[in-house]
Amino acid sequence: MVIQKGTLYGIGVGPGDPELLTLKANRLINEADVVAYPAPETGDGIALEIVRPLLLNNPQLLPLRIPISVSPLPAQYAYDQAAKLLELELEAGKIVSVICEGDPFFYGSFTFLFERLSGRFKTEIVPGVSSPMACAATLHTPLVSRNEILTILPAPLEEAELKQRLINTDAAAIIKVGRHLPKIRRILRNLRLEKYSHYVEHATMNNQKIIPLDKIDSQTVPYFSMVLVRKIKDRDNSGER
Amino acid sequence: MVIQKGTLYGIGVGPGDPELLTLKANRLINEADVVAYPAPETGDGIALEIVRPLLLNNPQLLPLRIPISVSPLPAQYAYDQAAKLLELELEAGKIVSVICEGDPFFYGSFTFLFERLSGRFKTEIVPGVSSPMACAATLHTPLVSRNEILTILPAPLEEAELKQRLINTDAAAIIKVGRHLPKIRRILRNLRLEKYSHYVEHATMNNQKIIPLDKIDSQTVPYFSMVLVRKIKDRDNSGER
Repeated sequence: MVIQKGTLYGIGVGPGDPELLTLKANRLINEADVVAYPAPETGDGIALEIVRPLLLNNPQLLPLRIPISVSPLPAQYAYDQAAKLLELELEAGKIVSVICEGDPFFYGSFTFLFERLSGRFKTEIVPGVSSPMACAATLHTPLVSRNEILTILPAPLEEAELKQRLINTDAAAIIKVGRHLPKIRRILRNLRLEKYSHYVEHATMNNQKIIPLDKIDSQTVPYFSMVLVRKIKDRDNSGER
Repeated sequence: MVIQKGTLYGIGVGPGDPELLTLKANRLINEADVVAYPAPETGDGIALEIVRPLLLNNPQLLPLRIPISVSPLPAQYAYDQAAKLLELELEAGKIVSVICEGDPFFYGSFTFLFERLSGRFKTEIVPGVSSPMACAATLHTPLVSRNEILTILPAPLEEAELKQRLINTDAAAIIKVGRHLPKIRRILRNLRLEKYSHYVEHATMNNQKIIPLDKIDSQTVPYFSMVLVRKIKDRDNSGER
């Protein structure tokens, strides 16, 4: 008897509020045999925290232990191990949903599992609400409009590069701010962009905080924090296509 | 008697598949007194088409007629008129949900209504799944990863500018491709980026099409079309924070 191989879903569960899961994500996590979730070395991680109130059918929960801050080689090894765990379930014919904070393909670690597994197993990606959109909604500041250019900038980039990128864009979402806040603040001050910049951490989560840029304690900035920048140009309302 | 003013919701309804509405969007459109939707001069428009199968409570449907391709002044006027229609309902104490394709603040025309109304009425934005994430999911190509830079580029920008931006980014989502396809194709060929580029139109909708770049008939490219570009760099799997 040939056992039918399983199906792998990479499911975006949005920025934090469980109500920001899509109808499709909600359906699929409740149809899955296995719900796999990225997690630190101990504890459950944020993705599972987000979906837990929505899980109705008591699926098998499978933690994928990915150390939080890692150098390349141990990370490779962690993803190899996680892929092996998923492979066992998929070979057994199970429906496996890997839940991902935000969107699976927008700076998501799911990409590294996808690269290892999608060639061998039926795979479907379910897009999710991403953090820049959630932060803009929370902050009541439009992210980008008309024919403006939006640049997504990871805060770990070097100061000179970040500065040049901010000079050359209409709007930016600076992600993964965390310990890089002093650098980001210095650049924004230097470019006189402070008045166009807004900070939020843990957007749409219970511990969401909006803090004026000059009031943030740089010792306590979490990884899930973001600065949105939008230079206001002439408002012509044009929608040229 | 003082009438309590109503509440305005700007609701992202995602890229096209009704199942990609969030649980919150689905709840709010069904709690609304009025569901307002951007629409061309005749017909219903895509946002209403997306949510129609989910509307259970027979809300008042209010079309906001925004001509599709307009120069600045008539557009201003159209948004002024739309804002006035919404204002009447809000002054009467109604709960008004304006539905928006994708996300309201990511190149959404809702921004222009928000600017006109949010100062006077209680307003909440519900973020939605955006088209770059939906296209990446559909194409099975990760959008951006690690500390790469992602640039969102509206295709109507000038050729020299688009070219320079594509040289200077790790990944790009070129949106609103439509009639600009020949220009985009020329740039990608010129930069030898074709093999890193993927085209999709109407992602997640019933008429979704994935077409190889060199096979697209440039006469038939719709507005809802996108080219994703990602230069593959060394794969170190590093997640430096």
